[in-house]
Formats: sequence, structure tokens, C-alpha cells
Amino acid sequence: MQNDLAHSLSAIAGSDGVLTGEPAAPYCTDWRGRYSGNALAVVFPSHTQQVADIVKLCAAHQITIVPQGGNTSLCGGSVPLALPAGGRQIVLNLSRMNRVRAFDAINYSMTVEAGCKLADVREAAEKNNRLFPLGLTATQKYCEIGGNLSTNAGGINVLRYGNTRDLVLGLEVVLPDGRIWNGLRSLRKDNSGYDLKQLFIGAEGTLGIITAAVLKLFPRPQATATACIAIADPDVAVCLLAHVRANCGDMLSSFEIISRSCLDLVLKHTPDTREPFTGKHEWIIITQLADVMPAPLDGALRNALKSFGSGIIEFDVTGDEDHAERWWKLRKNISEAQKREGISIKHDVSVPVSRVAEFIARADAALRSAFPGIRIVSFGHMGDGNIHYNVSMPDAAQNKTFIANQEIAVNKLVYTVVRELNGSISAEHGLGQLKRDTIRGYKEPLELELMRSIKQTLDPHGLMNPGKVV
Amino acid sequence: MQNDLAHSLSAIAGSDGVLTGEPAAPYCTDWRGRYSGNALAVVFPSHTQQVADIVKLCAAHQITIVPQGGNTSLCGGSVPLALPAGGRQIVLNLSRMNRVRAFDAINYSMTVEAGCKLADVREAAEKNNRLFPLGLTATQKYCEIGGNLSTNAGGINVLRYGNTRDLVLGLEVVLPDGRIWNGLRSLRKDNSGYDLKQLFIGAEGTLGIITAAVLKLFPRPQATATACIAIADPDVAVCLLAHVRANCGDMLSSFEIISRSCLDLVLKHTPDTREPFTGKHEWIIITQLADVMPAPLDGALRNALKSFGSGIIEFDVTGDEDHAERWWKLRKNISEAQKREGISIKHDVSVPVSRVAEFIARADAALRSAFPGIRIVSFGHMGDGNIHYNVSMPDAAQNKTFIANQEIAVNKLVYTVVRELNGSISAEHGLGQLKRDTIRGYKEPLELELMRSIKQTLDPHGLMNPGKVV
Repeated sequence: MQNDLAHSLSAIAGSDGVLTGEPAAPYCTDWRGRYSGNALAVVFPSHTQQVADIVKLCAAHQITIVPQGGNTSLCGGSVPLALPAGGRQIVLNLSRMNRVRAFDAINYSMTVEAGCKLADVREAAEKNNRLFPLGLTATQKYCEIGGNLSTNAGGINVLRYGNTRDLVLGLEVVLPDGRIWNGLRSLRKDNSGYDLKQLFIGAEGTLGIITAAVLKLFPRPQATATACIAIADPDVAVCLLAHVRANCGDMLSSFEIISRSCLDLVLKHTPDTREPFTGKHEWIIITQLADVMPAPLDGALRNALKSFGSGIIEFDVTGDEDHAERWWKLRKNISEAQKREGISIKHDVSVPVSRVAEFIARADAALRSAFPGIRIVSFGHMGDGNIHYNVSMPDAAQNKTFIANQEIAVNKLVYTVVRELNGSISAEHGLGQLKRDTIRGYKEPLELELMRSIKQTLDPHGLMNPGKVV
Repeated sequence: MQNDLAHSLSAIAGSDGVLTGEPAAPYCTDWRGRYSGNALAVVFPSHTQQVADIVKLCAAHQITIVPQGGNTSLCGGSVPLALPAGGRQIVLNLSRMNRVRAFDAINYSMTVEAGCKLADVREAAEKNNRLFPLGLTATQKYCEIGGNLSTNAGGINVLRYGNTRDLVLGLEVVLPDGRIWNGLRSLRKDNSGYDLKQLFIGAEGTLGIITAAVLKLFPRPQATATACIAIADPDVAVCLLAHVRANCGDMLSSFEIISRSCLDLVLKHTPDTREPFTGKHEWIIITQLADVMPAPLDGALRNALKSFGSGIIEFDVTGDEDHAERWWKLRKNISEAQKREGISIKHDVSVPVSRVAEFIARADAALRSAFPGIRIVSFGHMGDGNIHYNVSMPDAAQNKTFIANQEIAVNKLVYTVVRELNGSISAEHGLGQLKRDTIRGYKEPLELELMRSIKQTLDPHGLMNPGKVV
């Protein structure tokens, strides 16, 4: 079976476009090493027609398909399930489809293939004096745009530019039966029927394979101003964000919150970092304005902060990007510093922006009461109500037992607060296999039923990324 | 039958909530008087549960439902079909559901019922120092937000803020079987499954009835600058738009193009209007910057225009809103002036922004060659590649014959150019009954098939707004 399949796949994608056995293994494990699966083969098509032919071949033999890009999913969404022997699945990796098909500076759009790396898309835009605003702190260099689209990736500029969904004009998709849907329109307005592309964005490859997209571009900012702000409590951050938005408008492009525990970890594990202020503070905010007008923005940001009144302990503003980068380093190294410190139970949750402080207070209280001595590392995209909320025990040995035994109990406490605040247990990372079962406890049955009916309609034989999302 | 139904509907919506016979007639005709249908009754529910009960009643008796808001559809989307006697359909008008359920200034969001008028939504936002940016020139006072959502309305600020789809955080929908889906989340990030609300936005009531929505709000601009620019050719407008965007960035909130023929009609039919310049020019552009910072913007706009180089014949910039309104009057009265002049064959089309000039040139040439003496009135949202392209014969008697005999031929010529430029034959008005059949000639069969399969999945008995869209 496996040899026959590899042979047929080679006939489509070329003999250098198929891996089996040991060489295929890296594509069957996620980048955190948390999920490992098995696949009959990993195939690397170079063109949309090859993708279509592979899907048709698999459909004819009831072989399931895991679409994969840079394989940076944090939820096990881009690796195959661990199936008993005889599991019939392949990984379809789109990394070879990495061409920029068209660039239209006047239309502020570009057409890219799914395998383009996000960093390369950003760079291609910049070379043409345009901005593609999707910005991910940890994975930008590795992740591919097809994965960003399939997971509706978020990141640090959502406050201003929206999620990936908001950055798409058109899609090309290979459907589960191998037909190619050409929805590569580059229109700003098109009300000529149901907006089918919305189905595939954020579907994590369970409804079809995105092979190319028309992306929206924006004017490239020429000036930035960045502030680092010390506050005592997230309550202040909630009001400060609304105030800065009202005063600085759409120039506000990020608003990140970092707790003391994050800072301590970053300072401990990251070279060339230091406290942003002489005093130690419980919370800091890093916020940035950006504008295409070259005039300095630091004055505007300073005025907005000064007019806020009490609540800010101290702040500093700079229009110098190198200076700002020293602060951003504190934000961008949190994930890495946490990893060095040891494993933790992670949550990627969102609530309405107005309720972020309430979420943190209530979740903290519930956890500290249930697990005395717990360490809570919370930070994130305050501007989008998206908090990365990670917990562990400071003592390494104790932590191991804690995580082995209490993950479910911890999740339940955190997610209960999320539910009470009408939030989401997956803000930006998606469901993948990590939260596929959990979500059933937090979404109403009618919504789950609608999701399943859409899946059934588009992928009646369940061939696309099984065991993920629905 | 009709009496029984009216009785049952009254039991749900109250006896003052049901109309039959003559009083129901205005709700069965569209506002242009182009489409008239018949309905067993028009019902006005006050609450979501009443909507659900009405839908259940209709589902049980195979009575179809036309959801209706302000009834300002330009495509016959909000009125019933003209059916032979015995047609079993009702109009479900949501105008009584006009409450603002919640306002969250900190989260920049508000929760409104479908029957809220767009103008009232905008006003409620403004009172709280927020902006709801959907702006429609002709119908703002009459249309309701449920209709805006169902048609994914566009308008004059799409360039900056997107279409209605981009302004929604959550929806409440009554499904075709009468169940209520509560998707009223107010989250900026939520990747916890398929984004179901996207299905109902822009579906023109064919998949369910939107009863409430959480809308995104924005900081309210404090300063504006407006320019009126004379150019010889749309080619210049295409490059000028990209240039102004690159120089003024996200402050650019509208960019409208108006042809000589529009100006002539407006000056003829609208009191208190005059030529914007001493000379007469073939095309004018009206463009606006807006910013929440109170600093004057006219200097920035003037600099951007000055640095464009040749191509601009003359221009004027003002930071004064009353002055600007004199120019806007030329834009906002085009539809009304056309109506006074007589009927015309209208097109609401879009192409990539970079190809607007090409579209106008090619469509003009094709029409002038086929129909010598034709009058072409083209104007629209240049910033979105959305042109309203209307044609008639200047002589009234000749025009009547022309429209009676040549509408199909004219449409074919225009839509062929649209297709060749990868455009859309319905940019912002939707399909309704007007373009339901036409679209089949301009969309690939696979896309139509996918649309029908979604319709079949969500509305298997075809009860929701039959004869529209699919």
C-alpha cells in the first residue's frame, strides 16, 4: 500500500517531492514536540494542479490529508494524528508553493501562494513601499501564509488592522474532492453571492486546502512612537487603552500588557535585557503609534498619556525605533523565557477588552485559592482582549507533578471564568487537536451542530485534516 | 387560510403587529417602485422570541418568509415575489426591533437589534464619542442595520473602514427552523471554530434572519480636510488615489469620482449647487481625510496633492466642513438628479482599483459604438473600485424605447468588460431578484454549486427569501 501510494504521489509531485519513513518524521511532529503522528507519506506539490491531483488520488482511496505549511501550529493542527498501524493518512506540505504571483501596488494587493513565508510576504510588500500588517512575535520567520489564513492568525497589530481574515480579498482553494475553486478576486467590494472564502479562512484545513490568496496591503508607516508605561493594576490598562484610542485614533497599532512575572522570567533568561524603569512595577504596557506621515509622533503619544490623569505610575516615550526595540525585547522574549524556565499550562483566551482586568482578577483568585503557591504568567494583546495566561509551579519537581495531575482542573477554572465573561477559550491559536474536545463543553450545541453540518456539506467523507476542529 | 394565518400571527406578535390586504401593500413594493409582490400577511415582531415563533409557524405550514428592514433594497431583495394566487409567503418586518441592547465604550462596541435605523446607530455612537463608520449617501435615514448586515452594505467609507462585514463582532440569528443562534459575542479575537456569522452577513436573508448584532465602533474623528480636484481622465484618478494613500495613510476616508455628465445633471436638478471651479472639467474627485487628532489636516492634504506632479488640472482644499459640504452636495445628489432626469439602466460594478480607468474606457467605447448618442453617467467609490455606471438616451421618448428594448444588450456589454477585468457585477447592492439569474452567466459553475449546497444545508426546505440570490 505505502509503496503504491508513494509511487502514485511521485508521479504527481516528482520523486523528490515525496518523503516516507524516517525522513518524513519531522513533518509528523509539531514544533513544540507535543504531538506526534504517523503518515504514509509527506508530499510537496509545486503547483495548484498537483495539489488537486493529490487530493483526487487520496479521495479515490479514502486516504485522509493533513494540510501543512510551516508546521508552527500551537494546537497540533498541522500534524497527523497518532493512528494505530493501518491508519491511512498523508501530510500535504505546501512549502514549495512559495511564489508571489502578482503584485498590484495601485490596488494595494498582492497574490501569493500558500507556501510563502509570512516574513517574505512582509518583505515583498515593504520593498514596494507597502505594508502587510500581520505581525506574529514568535513564528514570523517560519510560518507560512497558508497556515496564517487557515488559522486566521492574530498577533500584535490586530487592534489596528484586524485578524488575517480581515486582510484577505480572495482565495484559491482545492476542495475535498480535488476540484479547484478559483476565488482569487482582488476586489474591495463584491456582493455577488455568499462570501465563500470566509468558510476556508480559520477552518484549519478541515474544509479544503488554501493554495493561494490575494492579500490586502496598506500604506507603509514612516514614523512610529512607542511608550513604556508602568501601572499598578490591569484595571488602569483597560481605561488607558480606550483613552489612547480616543486621542490617537487609528494610529494606535499595538497595546500589549506584561505582568511582573513575565518581566522576571525575561530578565532572568534573555541576555541584554533590563528593567524598563528604575523602580520595579507590577505591570507594564508597551504601546505603539505608527503613521505614514513622517512627522514625529512622540509628542502626540506623550500628550495622550499625560492627559490620562492618575493611574499611571511612570512612563517613557520614544520616537527612536532602536530605543523602542529594547522595550519590545521584553515582550517578544516572553515565550522563549518561559520555555527555558520549564513547562507550563498555557491558555490563549479572549474576553471583551473592557473585561480583561476582571478576567485576570477572577482567574488569579480562583487559581491561587485552589493551588497555593502557583505562578501565573499573564501577558498579551490587551488591545484585542487576548490574554496569554500560563501557569506553573515555581519549583521544578513540584511543577512536573502539578502539570501531570492538575492540567484539567486548571483549565476548567480558567475556562469557567472565560465563559462567564462571554469570552473565547481560543482567541488566536485555533482549536487543532488540542482543544477539539474541550470546545464541546464551551460552545452551545446548536453552534457545534452548525459547524458539523458545514463540515458534512463540504467534506462529506471526512478526508480533510480529521480529528481537528470539529 | 389567510385568516387562520393572520390569527396565528396575531397570537404571536399582537393584533397590531399584523397587516393584511391593502395596508400590507406598501411592504410588498420596493422603494423605487420596480418590484411588486404579494404576501398573505406582513408581521412586525417586537422580540427575537417572536421572530422564532413566527418562523416555526411558517416552517410547519411551508409558508415562505421575506425578511425586511427599511425596505430600501435596490435589487428587489426585500419584497416578496409576484406569485400567482395561492402563493404562500409572508413579509417579516423587523422595524419594531429597534433597541440598543448594550453600549460598551471601552470595548468600542454596541449591541443593536436589526430594526435600528442606520442613522440612529450612528447617532448613538456619536453621543458616546464613538464612530460607527458605515455611511450610505442615499438611504441612511431609512435603511435598518439588519438590512445593512444582510446585504453587506458598502458606501463611502469602505476605503478606510471596510464593508459592513468588517464592522461586525457578533450576530444573533433565527435559523430557518426557528431555532435561535446566539452568536452575540463582542470579541476582537475568537478562533474557536468556524466563523458562522460570516454565512449570514451578505446572504440577503436567504439563510436565516439576523435579529441583532454586536457592531465595532471606532474613535470619532475631530478634524477633517476635504479636497475637490479637477482631472482630465480617470487614469489620473487611479494613480492619484495610490499617491494620496501612500502619503496620508489611514486618514484617507473617502475618494469619490464624478463625471461631467453627473455634474451637469446635479447642477440642472439640484437647487443651491454650482460648478466647483470657474472652468468646466471632465472629471472631478472629492476626497476626504479625517483624524481624531484635532490638528488641522488641510496642509497635509494640500502637500499630498502638490507632490503628485502633473495630471491635476486644478484643486482646492478646505478644513471647513460647511465648505466641504458644498462639494459633497454634488456627489450626494447624483442619484436624485438622475431620477428627475428620467429612467436609466443602472450598473453597480467593481473592478480592482488599479483597473477603474480601463473599465470606464472600455465600457464607454463598447457602448458608444453599439448605441451612438448614448449618455453615460458614471461616478462612484473610486477608492473601492466601485463604479455606478448608468446609461440612458438624452431624448426622453427615445430613451423609453431604448430601455424597453436594449437593457439586456447594454448589460451584456458592460458585464463582459467587468468579467474581462476580473470584476463583480454586483459590488455593493447585492443580487436580490434583480441579478439572481444574471449572476449565473458570470460566476463559475463550481462557485454557484457551493452556494447552493450552503443554502440546501441551512435552509433545506427553501423557506427563506425564495427567489433571491441563489
